[in-house]
Amino acid sequence: MIKTAHGAIETPIFMPVGTAGTVKGVHQRELVHDVKAQIILGNTYHLYLRPGIEILHEAGGLHHFISWEKPILTDSGGYQVYSLSARRKITEEGVAFVSHIDGSKHFFTPEKAIEIQREIGADFLMAFDECTPFPCEYDYAKSSMQLTHRWLKRCCTEFDSSDGIHGYGQTLFPIVQGSTFKDLRKESAEVIASFGREGNAIGGLSVGEPAGQMYEITEQVCSILPKDKPRYLMGVGTPANILECIGLGIDLFDCVLPTRNARHGLLYTAKGIMNMKNARWKDDFSPIDESSPCETSRTYSKAYLRHLLHSKELLGSQIASLHNLSFFLWLVQEARRHIRAGDFLSWKNKIVVEIQQRL
Amino acid sequence: MIKTAHGAIETPIFMPVGTAGTVKGVHQRELVHDVKAQIILGNTYHLYLRPGIEILHEAGGLHHFISWEKPILTDSGGYQVYSLSARRKITEEGVAFVSHIDGSKHFFTPEKAIEIQREIGADFLMAFDECTPFPCEYDYAKSSMQLTHRWLKRCCTEFDSSDGIHGYGQTLFPIVQGSTFKDLRKESAEVIASFGREGNAIGGLSVGEPAGQMYEITEQVCSILPKDKPRYLMGVGTPANILECIGLGIDLFDCVLPTRNARHGLLYTAKGIMNMKNARWKDDFSPIDESSPCETSRTYSKAYLRHLLHSKELLGSQIASLHNLSFFLWLVQEARRHIRAGDFLSWKNKIVVEIQQRL
Repeated sequence: MIKTAHGAIETPIFMPVGTAGTVKGVHQRELVHDVKAQIILGNTYHLYLRPGIEILHEAGGLHHFISWEKPILTDSGGYQVYSLSARRKITEEGVAFVSHIDGSKHFFTPEKAIEIQREIGADFLMAFDECTPFPCEYDYAKSSMQLTHRWLKRCCTEFDSSDGIHGYGQTLFPIVQGSTFKDLRKESAEVIASFGREGNAIGGLSVGEPAGQMYEITEQVCSILPKDKPRYLMGVGTPANILECIGLGIDLFDCVLPTRNARHGLLYTAKGIMNMKNARWKDDFSPIDESSPCETSRTYSKAYLRHLLHSKELLGSQIASLHNLSFFLWLVQEARRHIRAGDFLSWKNKIVVEIQQRL
Repeated sequence: MIKTAHGAIETPIFMPVGTAGTVKGVHQRELVHDVKAQIILGNTYHLYLRPGIEILHEAGGLHHFISWEKPILTDSGGYQVYSLSARRKITEEGVAFVSHIDGSKHFFTPEKAIEIQREIGADFLMAFDECTPFPCEYDYAKSSMQLTHRWLKRCCTEFDSSDGIHGYGQTLFPIVQGSTFKDLRKESAEVIASFGREGNAIGGLSVGEPAGQMYEITEQVCSILPKDKPRYLMGVGTPANILECIGLGIDLFDCVLPTRNARHGLLYTAKGIMNMKNARWKDDFSPIDESSPCETSRTYSKAYLRHLLHSKELLGSQIASLHNLSFFLWLVQEARRHIRAGDFLSWKNKIVVEIQQRL
């Protein structure tokens, strides 16, 4: 349980990604009533470029702007600067980059990333880091990690010398980096832990490395980060990834997978994965998922959803997104239940096989 | 009030268009609870091509296929054959055409149009007609109208010699044609009325002619069609068109305008029309329409909707579609209320000016 100015969050939890102030294809009230989302994520890079910080400031922050009363976490903008911007140049001072929308030039520093996130008004802010790609040379990973640590100091100074500007408190999470190198990860986790912030994140995973390596590093880093503070594994992942990493001590997850794959017709269920574009569903008039907690998945048929996706109808993306997000939130709810009951591991080992089957 | 196997419909009413078995961007439950739709329209041409009649047959009809329990009206498929198909050839027997989706060849006859609509299982079926374009030569309009009348006989023969195949009754509406020529419209309305079907439609309007001409023909045709049976003006129109034609005796309307224009950012309200992409809304944090009956329009702000539309986010289309449809259904509900109160004309003359203002 994590308390915020916008209510409490049960952990472990999955955070739907609302990149530009909207979880794609899903109404805010559906996030609350159907998906049972407790917190969503916003991307600082996207929000900074559009609608822009001035608008978000005038709106009184992102919560007001998008009519969302529950907690929000924002990333620092760094990840998208590296992955989306056509050109970017990293220096000690910060990152110069060019907007992927209109080619305009911008400069992010650790201080500016905090300032922007203060304006956005997220409950959880992320420190400005460099997220190294996979694979990554050892020397680059090491100097990048050291830069991330130096930037973290600047983030903390900026954060600790400023207040929430929308009338409520916010929390800053630093990020462990170090690519796939164990000595770097150990060093980074120790440095990050030494800052003593209210929660900690693990970045630079789920960027292409084998799942086994992701689990090894997560286990190693979790053994160093304090257990009494939330641990957030950024950008992870598949339902199986999430369950395995809950087992390793992770509390917070976010990923575009449930919504992005939904738009491509890939559905996650407790019994396995369905590619809804397959011909085998064309005359299957049974509910999309009759055991789903989501009314939508129990109402519409597989054949109808297949038709909508084939016809590129908006409603296809809407239904599939609602379904997948509901499944992800159901999965972490079940995880919480089994953790409380003391049988998480046996449950996880069983369901992790089932949910990866191809239906 | 029109009774159907799927419940009663209050008139005058607007029917949201669910082309391919979905009102674009809107969940079925939203149509019921937010939009207050009482009946929706399906397009035979689209449904025939995708998902195809075999699937709809196996599903037990369109209602079951799309999980919609209220009435449905289907067009005959003719209009889309003329407007969407790359190549089509009209003969006495019917229309040969090529699918706009995959180039496959098909042939519609009046009998086949009825057979397909029996399978779709709509509550209201439309006769197979030729919809003439605007402008149209007199001679072509006349021979086309005569063909439509001969096809109507074949439609009625096919309809009257068959039964609803999904266990409930259906109703066939013939269609008045005759382009913009008064003598042809008079002849067609008299012929159509003479068939004595349970309801009648007016086709070939709202195809590019001036609004004044549309009203004149509607008035003329309504003076001939029986007043005790529903009169359906196909493909009409703007909120002002609808109000004027209610005044002329029309009971049923359908149009893609509220959803198509929503996706382009054009919103209809009781106070006028808003282009939500305009810069003037970028920092207007007031509700989209605080006097709207639709919760969504009272919840989200204009600035947020503008941001979503600019960012081409699905939620922008979803919110705008919900808003516009709710407005159209509110408008006809108000029309019914004022008809009952006996002050329809004075109300209509006042609001028709207001709703056309540009905000």
